[in-house]
Amino acid sequence: MGYTIKPSEGKLGILIPGLGAVATTFIAGVAAINKGLAKPVGSLTQMGNIRLGKRTENRYPLIKDFVPLANLKDVVFGGWDVYEDNVFEAASNAKVLEPLLLHAVKDELESIKPMKAVFDKDFVRNLDGTHIKEQTHRRELADALIEDIAQFKENNNCNRLVMVWCGSTEKYIEDCEIFESIAAFEEALDSDDRRISPSMIYAYAAIKSHVPFANGAPNLTCDIPALVELSQLLEVPIAGKDFKTGQTLMKTILAPGLQARALGVKGWFSSNILGNRDGLVLDDPDNFKTKEVSKLSVLEEILNQEINPELYGDLYHKVRINYYPPHGDNKESWDNVDIFGWLGYPMQIKINFLCRDSILAAPIVLDLALFLDLAHRAGMSGIQEWLSFYLKSPQTAPGLKPEHDIFKQLIKLQNTLRHIMGEDLITHLGLDYYQELVDSL
Amino acid sequence: MGYTIKPSEGKLGILIPGLGAVATTFIAGVAAINKGLAKPVGSLTQMGNIRLGKRTENRYPLIKDFVPLANLKDVVFGGWDVYEDNVFEAASNAKVLEPLLLHAVKDELESIKPMKAVFDKDFVRNLDGTHIKEQTHRRELADALIEDIAQFKENNNCNRLVMVWCGSTEKYIEDCEIFESIAAFEEALDSDDRRISPSMIYAYAAIKSHVPFANGAPNLTCDIPALVELSQLLEVPIAGKDFKTGQTLMKTILAPGLQARALGVKGWFSSNILGNRDGLVLDDPDNFKTKEVSKLSVLEEILNQEINPELYGDLYHKVRINYYPPHGDNKESWDNVDIFGWLGYPMQIKINFLCRDSILAAPIVLDLALFLDLAHRAGMSGIQEWLSFYLKSPQTAPGLKPEHDIFKQLIKLQNTLRHIMGEDLITHLGLDYYQELVDSL
Amino acid sequence: MGYTIKPSEGKLGILIPGLGAVATTFIAGVAAINKGLAKPVGSLTQMGNIRLGKRTENRYPLIKDFVPLANLKDVVFGGWDVYEDNVFEAASNAKVLEPLLLHAVKDELESIKPMKAVFDKDFVRNLDGTHIKEQTHRRELADALIEDIAQFKENNNCNRLVMVWCGSTEKYIEDCEIFESIAAFEEALDSDDRRISPSMIYAYAAIKSHVPFANGAPNLTCDIPALVELSQLLEVPIAGKDFKTGQTLMKTILAPGLQARALGVKGWFSSNILGNRDGLVLDDPDNFKTKEVSKLSVLEEILNQEINPELYGDLYHKVRINYYPPHGDNKESWDNVDIFGWLGYPMQIKINFLCRDSILAAPIVLDLALFLDLAHRAGMSGIQEWLSFYLKSPQTAPGLKPEHDIFKQLIKLQNTLRHIMGEDLITHLGLDYYQELVDSL
Amino acid sequence: MGYTIKPSEGKLGILIPGLGAVATTFIAGVAAINKGLAKPVGSLTQMGNIRLGKRTENRYPLIKDFVPLANLKDVVFGGWDVYEDNVFEAASNAKVLEPLLLHAVKDELESIKPMKAVFDKDFVRNLDGTHIKEQTHRRELADALIEDIAQFKENNNCNRLVMVWCGSTEKYIEDCEIFESIAAFEEALDSDDRRISPSMIYAYAAIKSHVPFANGAPNLTCDIPALVELSQLLEVPIAGKDFKTGQTLMKTILAPGLQARALGVKGWFSSNILGNRDGLVLDDPDNFKTKEVSKLSVLEEILNQEINPELYGDLYHKVRINYYPPHGDNKESWDNVDIFGWLGYPMQIKINFLCRDSILAAPIVLDLALFLDLAHRAGMSGIQEWLSFYLKSPQTAPGLKPEHDIFKQLIKLQNTLRHIMGEDLITHLGLDYYQELVDSL
Repeated sequence: MGYTIKPSEGKLGILIPGLGAVATTFIAGVAAINKGLAKPVGSLTQMGNIRLGKRTENRYPLIKDFVPLANLKDVVFGGWDVYEDNVFEAASNAKVLEPLLLHAVKDELESIKPMKAVFDKDFVRNLDGTHIKEQTHRRELADALIEDIAQFKENNNCNRLVMVWCGSTEKYIEDCEIFESIAAFEEALDSDDRRISPSMIYAYAAIKSHVPFANGAPNLTCDIPALVELSQLLEVPIAGKDFKTGQTLMKTILAPGLQARALGVKGWFSSNILGNRDGLVLDDPDNFKTKEVSKLSVLEEILNQEINPELYGDLYHKVRINYYPPHGDNKESWDNVDIFGWLGYPMQIKINFLCRDSILAAPIVLDLALFLDLAHRAGMSGIQEWLSFYLKSPQTAPGLKPEHDIFKQLIKLQNTLRHIMGEDLITHLGLDYYQELVDSL
Repeated sequence: MGYTIKPSEGKLGILIPGLGAVATTFIAGVAAINKGLAKPVGSLTQMGNIRLGKRTENRYPLIKDFVPLANLKDVVFGGWDVYEDNVFEAASNAKVLEPLLLHAVKDELESIKPMKAVFDKDFVRNLDGTHIKEQTHRRELADALIEDIAQFKENNNCNRLVMVWCGSTEKYIEDCEIFESIAAFEEALDSDDRRISPSMIYAYAAIKSHVPFANGAPNLTCDIPALVELSQLLEVPIAGKDFKTGQTLMKTILAPGLQARALGVKGWFSSNILGNRDGLVLDDPDNFKTKEVSKLSVLEEILNQEINPELYGDLYHKVRINYYPPHGDNKESWDNVDIFGWLGYPMQIKINFLCRDSILAAPIVLDLALFLDLAHRAGMSGIQEWLSFYLKSPQTAPGLKPEHDIFKQLIKLQNTLRHIMGEDLITHLGLDYYQELVDSL
Repeated sequence: MGYTIKPSEGKLGILIPGLGAVATTFIAGVAAINKGLAKPVGSLTQMGNIRLGKRTENRYPLIKDFVPLANLKDVVFGGWDVYEDNVFEAASNAKVLEPLLLHAVKDELESIKPMKAVFDKDFVRNLDGTHIKEQTHRRELADALIEDIAQFKENNNCNRLVMVWCGSTEKYIEDCEIFESIAAFEEALDSDDRRISPSMIYAYAAIKSHVPFANGAPNLTCDIPALVELSQLLEVPIAGKDFKTGQTLMKTILAPGLQARALGVKGWFSSNILGNRDGLVLDDPDNFKTKEVSKLSVLEEILNQEINPELYGDLYHKVRINYYPPHGDNKESWDNVDIFGWLGYPMQIKINFLCRDSILAAPIVLDLALFLDLAHRAGMSGIQEWLSFYLKSPQTAPGLKPEHDIFKQLIKLQNTLRHIMGEDLITHLGLDYYQELVDSL
Repeated sequence: MGYTIKPSEGKLGILIPGLGAVATTFIAGVAAINKGLAKPVGSLTQMGNIRLGKRTENRYPLIKDFVPLANLKDVVFGGWDVYEDNVFEAASNAKVLEPLLLHAVKDELESIKPMKAVFDKDFVRNLDGTHIKEQTHRRELADALIEDIAQFKENNNCNRLVMVWCGSTEKYIEDCEIFESIAAFEEALDSDDRRISPSMIYAYAAIKSHVPFANGAPNLTCDIPALVELSQLLEVPIAGKDFKTGQTLMKTILAPGLQARALGVKGWFSSNILGNRDGLVLDDPDNFKTKEVSKLSVLEEILNQEINPELYGDLYHKVRINYYPPHGDNKESWDNVDIFGWLGYPMQIKINFLCRDSILAAPIVLDLALFLDLAHRAGMSGIQEWLSFYLKSPQTAPGLKPEHDIFKQLIKLQNTLRHIMGEDLITHLGLDYYQELVDSL
């Protein structure tokens, strides 16, 4: 059965607020991939398989051969940034990719120049924007973005657009009344309410323009009732928030494993060192708080204290991010996990992950963009919970707790794809055909 | 709907060949738990929850409250060993549990004396048994074990029995014609064929006595067509092989996580240091080979090279076990994993697990015993693939590859429990009630 | 030749401000050692050897057999604390030593009750003292301590005393005019100047009473010109500051090794997790600053940027201490060291030290006490630079940089002992007797 | 006073048997350094300082400004290898240095072509030489090498030569009668005795040609009485054996630190993974044994069990080298050290060293070459014990134990330099000028 999905025709424009290390690694990567110079490793849409039917059928197509995604050759890029460097310059400064690789796609990258950004230093104290819009009134800024979007679509002859926030983490703010409904939000916009953050203005402009929106940072952004309401009203899919990379990725892999075995967890200490712009921004306690809230909730939800207080009731969880310039973008995490087993005997797990922040994030930008575009064409709107797989703080409907276990997230993603394509869901029970198999011997 | 399950009445006897560190930690633990001195952490049957119905129903009973398992108070223990130490002495020598804890259950443990073991030094060169059966002919040894089993059941007034192999790893042997059918096997037994290993004689004796059998070591034991055939014929459930603890446990947690994200793996080096009797036995290359085969297959199956050669085609996997007396039973593993992401950029993960071998294995003995007894009462027979969750080298029907991904194994286990109890299987799709929830807002 | 050293007769009293984890581990340890229950591992004075003469002479006596130290049997203990727990209670709360061991020396420990402490919450915000002296005027407090000291000596029939500060880290303060001379200091004391910290009052009272003083915390304490002047005037040896344990110990071992090989160091990131009272106090940024200053200078001095800017000019050094209750006194450190070698190629060293704070500090208390007593009897006064070996921030004469390299510190300590005992100093040249040896073949 | 040292005039030829990863990294590095493209980091002769006089004099010249070493600009290279690749090709295959760097010195490297090697597969089973001398008789091979040496000196117009063995580790052999005197050795050479290994023939040819010789591998080579005798007879300095890099370097840094503090060591487990040719050769147990012997003795000597049985009597030391191709030349070590402190309480240190084998070894080749040349010009002959600093198994006069403590080795090296240049030796006592300093205040 499945859904009716509009075909992927013409060009898909991917618009990115924040052309820093992640965005430029993503854009340069797609250019290199399209030239056959490298592989889109880490991208489920490009290199992942999906099992269909029973194990005995042995059907494991690539996901991109199973669902009608946009082709990488049909993607064009645009974006905004607070610095006026073009994507080649920005990628060179980011020092994530080898100079030789960047030079091989220099022309493609130089041609992508950022539009002027919406910026408010009050939300990111450690940055100084120089390439920013002249307007200062929230409403005017929103209108300017809507105009940018329309212009980009026309100039680049795009059939469809998606937007993915790759900007810096904004300072911590909490929900308040102006975020409660789209009516209140638009009124606040009109009165230039300073509680509205720049990323919210981008999200508003995108949804208003019928452009699916994903948020890669831990800011609230589209995770407020007002914008959820708008996305349902206009039938636009959205997804947030905070790309799940590095340490949190490891955490959502390991914690479900410990819980699966009913092993207790007494403490989890997580330290990170990184030296890129992200690390600099997070050196400001207000911005770190936003990140911390996003990072802390993960364990609490997976290791549910209420359901199992004897195993997880005393869990002490601490996360630290340390700015350490010698490492540049080569983020490194060190985790100490204090667990206990049979009769309460203690054991320890230490994990040292020498990762690369932007290398892990880039394929997530790609997958979110392509899956949101797919969802839009399939008529799905509002929060796309099945994309939780990619996010540290998945947005959910009010009343539902987010699912952080990456394996449950994966099954949800895969079963969603099977569902919209009319394939059987997989339960891993297998008793039926197992018996058949045995009987047939 | 579900299955018809006979109630758990009277005593359940758990018979264990090999009363070493694992078995005595298990037995002493159950005694301490029954006295309220400690908790059965790490045991799914005792402390694990299972979600039933939709997320919005919020039903997470303990597994032991959901399925009719034997109660810990109704369990009695027996076993065989090549040394005549009683369980208190053996547990004291093993140095896994604190002396104070052992003394609190001294009486219970002292009363459990091993029966004389079936032993063949040719299969375990680094051990010297002194408490072994006088018979040497394979058939006579099998008959003696069958008699031991019957005697134990009567003496202890047991309603039912299960047997779990906790003995040492035997030397590596391969399948051969005498293992191909129960007819050939019994003929070989009658002619005292030395290719039949001691553990096979235990498994044969158990199944012949209608006693479910699990194998915690990597030896073939019941993983031969002959004994699978017998188990189906006599409707006895079996499960093997090799308790999944420590490093392999971590591997089957981490590898699915990397694969979930389509991250490539170029190399995986695993080192172990341990200083217990198990470490001594594995210092013999023939015995290590049995273990190595069991440990190596795990990655190959999870990171399927055939389905995804670009990500896993070059995987170099090496496992080393080093006998290191200063650590005793406190096994420690160190893993270096070389992965690659977007555009092929390399990253590294290092995992240092300071674990305790017997502490991780003991609750597995318990769960396998209780679940096999449940399966028996539910009329399930032959290989119990849903217990793969506990095993490094799960036995499967011929033609099926084992599933090593611990999260798929868990879903299979949980959905099997839901299935036999007549509850809905869980697919994590959730699109239906998610929409309802959103609509209701 | 050597020095004339007064013999060690009668009892030596060791007075300790701060009867917390370190002090009680020290006192309980000495009691256990005197009963033959344990060994003074980690103490150079008790278990260290010293080479005398040429290598070919093969003379390696124990240090305690070489220099006339006080015997452990002749040591008695006293101290002050802000809580009124006796040493048994305090040691039990500290949870460093096994209950069984503590019980074996319970009587000895219970009899040691703290005198009321000099305390000023302004200097240690995270503690609340309840067992403190009634006086509040600085001068009166000093007089009260001098009276305590005299009383203790008489009550315990001591021949000599030494004092070792084991109290908490006080908040960061800088040198100022009242610390510049003993005249200014005493005037400030008389006028109850609040800039004088409690630890300074203890140091003043000790020196005034002709009692050698060592400081185990990073506070200034006796590291001010005023108290150095007084110690020379009254011919009292002093040593400070901050016991060198755990991570800094490792740093002063590793850094000289890297420098020995002319390997460059680009970055050094040090993280600590600990859950004892010390960790709690250091959670206050003011107190952490005192510690941080002490910890940071170590590398700068060993890896001298001025002498070798090409190798160490860009060194980025960061130290973090994280309060993490699950670990208690089991401090754990993790270091990442970014080094570079031939042609500038980068390499990394990661060190994970699972240490025990008080276990490493206790023998330092002992050695400092015994060596200061020796120095006093040998007529040495003022700063004892040869005890730098034990300290994170060694006090030195103005104009001299502290030596942090633990191996140079050790040579200085050993050559000082050889010197005062009239033995040849060791240069490790050996060309002379090497040649003799070769010639004799 | 000091020694009379002949000046360094004209060219110094460095001859290397074994133009593999280490040698080519060394040669390419010197070429790059001479072009100003990189720095000789890790080389004491080029970048190390030495303190002269009292601390208060503040004299820290570079070693190369203090002793009259050959200048890097005056060095020329030659060598032998079992493969005919020129140094550019060999360096490219070794994959240690970046292609861009190699290309910058391509001309210099291409011009260095290996002479045909002396090779005997019986000593290195895992290699297959194709570029080897036609002669097979030991004596003829020695003569051919002597001829090669003379030819090279003349062709390259060298003033002086040194030779440094950088070839593979040969299989383990023990001392025997033919190695006992130069007379017996030459007789064995004449009768083509197969117990003489290829590396010994190189060493013999070098010494016979009055060329100083150093041995970078753990083979016996010049560490036999016969060649020591010859070196004294002909007044040629020699040094062996086994470059101290990576894990053993760390061990000789850390172990003295633990011993300095009288901390006990119960166990030390060392694992290595590496994927270069060296790793392949060491996969053969006979060759690993040679290495193992060299690696194991280090701890035994530093942590002297005889002198301190209570601290080191039970030390269990195990070293493993694992061939792991994914890492190439990027050797990685992991050490677990079980220590104990006050009252016997256990602690653990884990060290993970992500090193680069050839990057650490290359500057050692340089320093040994330049220092041996210096020693030769200073009239020093036979074993140069002061170069122990660079070696895992330092050669010593019979009857003397090797000194493994890297800090004592460094002092010996530095005091030897001071001694031959007529500077005061340093004892780190400092009591004299310390007192002056204090008095002057």
